[in-house]
Amino acid sequence: MLVVMQSHATEEQVRAVCSVIESLGYKAHPIPGAGRTAIGITGNSGTAELTALESMPGVGECIPVTKPYKLVSRDVKPETSVVKVSTALGDVLFGGTHVGMVAGPCAVESREQAFTVAKLTKAAGARLYRGGAYKPRTSPYSFQGLGEKGLQILADVRKEFGLGVITEAIDNESLDLVEKYADVIQIGARNMQNFSLLKHAGQAKKPVLLKRGMSATLEDLLLAAEYIMSEGNYAVILCERGVRTFSDHTRNTLDLSIVPAVQRLSHLPIVVDPSHGTGRRNKVLPLSRASVAVGADGLLVEVHHDPDRALSDGPQSIRPEDYTRLYNEVNQIAAVVGRTLN
Amino acid sequence: MLVVMQSHATEEQVRAVCSVIESLGYKAHPIPGAGRTAIGITGNSGTAELTALESMPGVGECIPVTKPYKLVSRDVKPETSVVKVSTALGDVLFGGTHVGMVAGPCAVESREQAFTVAKLTKAAGARLYRGGAYKPRTSPYSFQGLGEKGLQILADVRKEFGLGVITEAIDNESLDLVEKYADVIQIGARNMQNFSLLKHAGQAKKPVLLKRGMSATLEDLLLAAEYIMSEGNYAVILCERGVRTFSDHTRNTLDLSIVPAVQRLSHLPIVVDPSHGTGRRNKVLPLSRASVAVGADGLLVEVHHDPDRALSDGPQSIRPEDYTRLYNEVNQIAAVVGRTLN
Amino acid sequence: MLVVMQSHATEEQVRAVCSVIESLGYKAHPIPGAGRTAIGITGNSGTAELTALESMPGVGECIPVTKPYKLVSRDVKPETSVVKVSTALGDVLFGGTHVGMVAGPCAVESREQAFTVAKLTKAAGARLYRGGAYKPRTSPYSFQGLGEKGLQILADVRKEFGLGVITEAIDNESLDLVEKYADVIQIGARNMQNFSLLKHAGQAKKPVLLKRGMSATLEDLLLAAEYIMSEGNYAVILCERGVRTFSDHTRNTLDLSIVPAVQRLSHLPIVVDPSHGTGRRNKVLPLSRASVAVGADGLLVEVHHDPDRALSDGPQSIRPEDYTRLYNEVNQIAAVVGRTLN
Amino acid sequence: MLVVMQSHATEEQVRAVCSVIESLGYKAHPIPGAGRTAIGITGNSGTAELTALESMPGVGECIPVTKPYKLVSRDVKPETSVVKVSTALGDVLFGGTHVGMVAGPCAVESREQAFTVAKLTKAAGARLYRGGAYKPRTSPYSFQGLGEKGLQILADVRKEFGLGVITEAIDNESLDLVEKYADVIQIGARNMQNFSLLKHAGQAKKPVLLKRGMSATLEDLLLAAEYIMSEGNYAVILCERGVRTFSDHTRNTLDLSIVPAVQRLSHLPIVVDPSHGTGRRNKVLPLSRASVAVGADGLLVEVHHDPDRALSDGPQSIRPEDYTRLYNEVNQIAAVVGRTLN
Repeated sequence: MLVVMQSHATEEQVRAVCSVIESLGYKAHPIPGAGRTAIGITGNSGTAELTALESMPGVGECIPVTKPYKLVSRDVKPETSVVKVSTALGDVLFGGTHVGMVAGPCAVESREQAFTVAKLTKAAGARLYRGGAYKPRTSPYSFQGLGEKGLQILADVRKEFGLGVITEAIDNESLDLVEKYADVIQIGARNMQNFSLLKHAGQAKKPVLLKRGMSATLEDLLLAAEYIMSEGNYAVILCERGVRTFSDHTRNTLDLSIVPAVQRLSHLPIVVDPSHGTGRRNKVLPLSRASVAVGADGLLVEVHHDPDRALSDGPQSIRPEDYTRLYNEVNQIAAVVGRTLN
Repeated sequence: MLVVMQSHATEEQVRAVCSVIESLGYKAHPIPGAGRTAIGITGNSGTAELTALESMPGVGECIPVTKPYKLVSRDVKPETSVVKVSTALGDVLFGGTHVGMVAGPCAVESREQAFTVAKLTKAAGARLYRGGAYKPRTSPYSFQGLGEKGLQILADVRKEFGLGVITEAIDNESLDLVEKYADVIQIGARNMQNFSLLKHAGQAKKPVLLKRGMSATLEDLLLAAEYIMSEGNYAVILCERGVRTFSDHTRNTLDLSIVPAVQRLSHLPIVVDPSHGTGRRNKVLPLSRASVAVGADGLLVEVHHDPDRALSDGPQSIRPEDYTRLYNEVNQIAAVVGRTLN
Repeated sequence: MLVVMQSHATEEQVRAVCSVIESLGYKAHPIPGAGRTAIGITGNSGTAELTALESMPGVGECIPVTKPYKLVSRDVKPETSVVKVSTALGDVLFGGTHVGMVAGPCAVESREQAFTVAKLTKAAGARLYRGGAYKPRTSPYSFQGLGEKGLQILADVRKEFGLGVITEAIDNESLDLVEKYADVIQIGARNMQNFSLLKHAGQAKKPVLLKRGMSATLEDLLLAAEYIMSEGNYAVILCERGVRTFSDHTRNTLDLSIVPAVQRLSHLPIVVDPSHGTGRRNKVLPLSRASVAVGADGLLVEVHHDPDRALSDGPQSIRPEDYTRLYNEVNQIAAVVGRTLN
Repeated sequence: MLVVMQSHATEEQVRAVCSVIESLGYKAHPIPGAGRTAIGITGNSGTAELTALESMPGVGECIPVTKPYKLVSRDVKPETSVVKVSTALGDVLFGGTHVGMVAGPCAVESREQAFTVAKLTKAAGARLYRGGAYKPRTSPYSFQGLGEKGLQILADVRKEFGLGVITEAIDNESLDLVEKYADVIQIGARNMQNFSLLKHAGQAKKPVLLKRGMSATLEDLLLAAEYIMSEGNYAVILCERGVRTFSDHTRNTLDLSIVPAVQRLSHLPIVVDPSHGTGRRNKVLPLSRASVAVGADGLLVEVHHDPDRALSDGPQSIRPEDYTRLYNEVNQIAAVVGRTLN
């Protein structure tokens, strides 16, 4: 159920409607729009007693929402959401006309490695830095990340270079730490339907970057975002990183058509990770161009100064000089589609 | 690395080898076999300093293991593992010549519902009872299970009917509770690569039923089990429950060939869930027959006394009378392949 | 559109309705049933002028068919079709309570090889012999089959051993020859949507075994059969042989749930090919058991007396002694599901 | 086997080597390169007697080719192939720096429709016209195309507007007619492994546009092209048009990473069909941009002046005004990647 307030409704009226909703045992999500405020109601599928809301002052109309997702939907919020990440180098925006650029190593391996890559990606134009402290690895015998020590290194990267930091949380415990140390909390593909983690991320005060699961449909992805938003965190960035198919020339099959498909149904920004999406260094540049051309709201690229010796995902990491070329080419393509990198 | 002890090696010699391994910073996994004990070594890929083990008393040989999984492998333990679940009605076995039968509702909805179904599935021959207290649902607005209250109802089912209880854990917190209340801890398909949860399950003292993820390869599944075993819990039952493909006549595509494929590579038992595997009530009986015919070590079937009113997964739940027929038919097929239901 | 005649309608009345249908430019397919005759109408989606048929003598009712397929559907023919292949050793039936057994080498390589295998599969119980004279190979440099010379060898097999012969046609030219030499015309998976070939097969006077394409949905398969039937050939046997998925432990993923799914929607028999369906010799026996347990109307198994030297598909061919065991095991499972091998 | 001639080898020496190869029962494929000529040998996997070629005058070296494809490979021809289609409006090139643009309706429905669309696509910049006279439709009751009458209309389109014409052949008979009437012979996705048709296309004197099958791997696609080339027709254009996956927000999943993957292994050009690749009108523009950005050598787009009334594939056809916008946007992106539309 969605309550659309009249354009002249006062803040007080909005609050009154919200408190009635909550007194009935539901959760109210006021969503201010350009011209009017809408209030999403979650927590129950029954709608009987809610029709009474229609007669409250300031209420325009009550719309039953038949799609399984609500808060992520353009039905609830027609205007495109722009997610902002504040850094010492200025705000980085995802969505609208803004294409957010993120670069960094797959895993934080050491202070030296992290600083070396950070210096190079910053020089190449990226103001957001990615790097894993907790690595969900298919094998228990692969490098699992440095844990909190890795988070401290990331915090040092931020302090030293002014870069904003994105890193992955793999359970409720690490999420609390990631929220403390980083600027954006990443939920990885393998945890896209770890609903306990999604709810926990929904209570965090930092933006969440949510990666599409390897066999997630568009609806699965939007519902995973809905889990986060239904707990009150509206700063969600979706991420396409390839799905699993029979096609074997790349590690995953990058499904770029989900970018316009998401943008049609949802107001949330969606970025692309061509590194995991292809798993091959020589495919990162062309698929980065394609991602921006298709309309992606950002790029998440793995960069390593010595990829052949990386502790994880070396074969898909590009070198800093390749990133510079990538940045320049996607910058030109962004201009063609009326977007700007940042 | 795998240390194979001589057949006449004493327990003391085994312990001595283990303590050397651990003093080097690795984890030792002594695995007693029919004729000799093998010791799996995990925790590091380096092998240089381990060659010294070869000269210790009682050591037969040191074998470098090149497959990415070790403890799940028949290389480490050639004999088939039989996982035992003790119930007031006697032990239920999975593996070897034993086909374990599990039946019950998708979700525990109420004491009445749980008891009604339990009475009927017990009468039909099942001694293990499944039922979800924590339900990982694609939508945040779907019924999420009764939580700990559901676990208490399951404990009451055990007390009242003598049935063993299997139920799902969805995060570290619920896993602790499931371990306390239930007989088998289930890890669901969406959490198959929630490595934090797998490690936690590896520290539990109850058997773990691990479902294959929707896009997991055979190797992914074995490595997920390896996560559990590498923490010390060797009582793992694998479960095929369908994978995601283009094929749209069933909810998932049940990949029965993984049963003999697992049994070839691993000593662990593997059961089939034809309810989630097809998502269609009328497919559960034929695919149950096929599962036992292909060699499955057990069946996990959703049964509900009133499936059209089930709060979750009604369309794939069969009625108790259908389960009786199913039990009878698979019982005859089990005999053809030299197995017995239990 | 489907015209259902009254149960007492005369043959003359049926003919009269057919000729009106054809005078309107459509094609009439009279389908005699146990109690009444139905007449399928194909060739146009418009139905306006056909309502006049309702008032003709002997007509019970006119039913618009909304599914995209008609003649394959149980709506048109509720009774299960049994397809008969006559051999010197007696009729082999597919469908109803009959499970048809077919065995033989992937490719006819020489007269000696063909005779050797035929002698062994006949001894093991199979009365139908499969063997390719035209081989659709992924590479132009792989063995492409002996062509018409292979068909002559197959005819000699029939003459010498009394076995019925099934072999593949790959284009309109070879189909004419296959129809001349063989007892059943096979259309391979790669040609399942070669609609020109399907139409040509629909004009043949021999039964057609139609294999499911590697990415064909249930509806695609039924519509491919509809192409054959709409040209007048109603003796169609469907065949599941595995589909292409991400799952890599077998060459294809055998989708056994399509067997009950087909049997629910269509009256046509459906057999399973576990050799191509798995691509692994050691999976053929368990998946053959599973196929009969799930309700398959037949099995198509590759047998070779010296599989390691086979010119094509050796790794998935079983040895004659394995086929004897397979035959015995599936025979017992057939009994459990009320079927008999033949 | 590949014979690489010395850079100074004469034409006579090349001819001499070829005639020795053919006298041994193989087929010789002389492939002139920038600096030297290579001679591909096909027709047999044995290589014993061929080593004698090494001592012939002008021969540089003999290289056994271990990949299953030869003639399509950059091993045989390192230089990128540019396929030329001559039209009254000038040559249209595919490959190298040239991006070939093809537009037109899914099916030729009538002279009026074909001319209306041709006038509009020509005005929008396309010099090649696509339109189906033979339509491979999933259902036998869907519009199957106008056949030869459709080809005559296409020939009239060429005469009237000067456009080059691309149209699909569905069997050997129609291929002969398509070769006669059209400028480029299209082999559709469903016939990608119709090897009889591929061989026939290999004997044609017109370029062939070969679409990737719905579940074809990169290797399958290259080997299908190898079938055509091994018969002597080297003018092959590959086409990505989406593959079948679980992902359901588009009709097929466009696998753009195959473009750089093909270009790495093969010298052949590869174009993209975003219309079939997405099946959704509103996805054609963004995926067209992405295709050119990723490096595609051309675009094949369905345009219809009245898509809601199209007899086939209306939902994925764009309007002429959309094509004008598409042409302009991809033109700018082509410039970024150093290519030009033509």
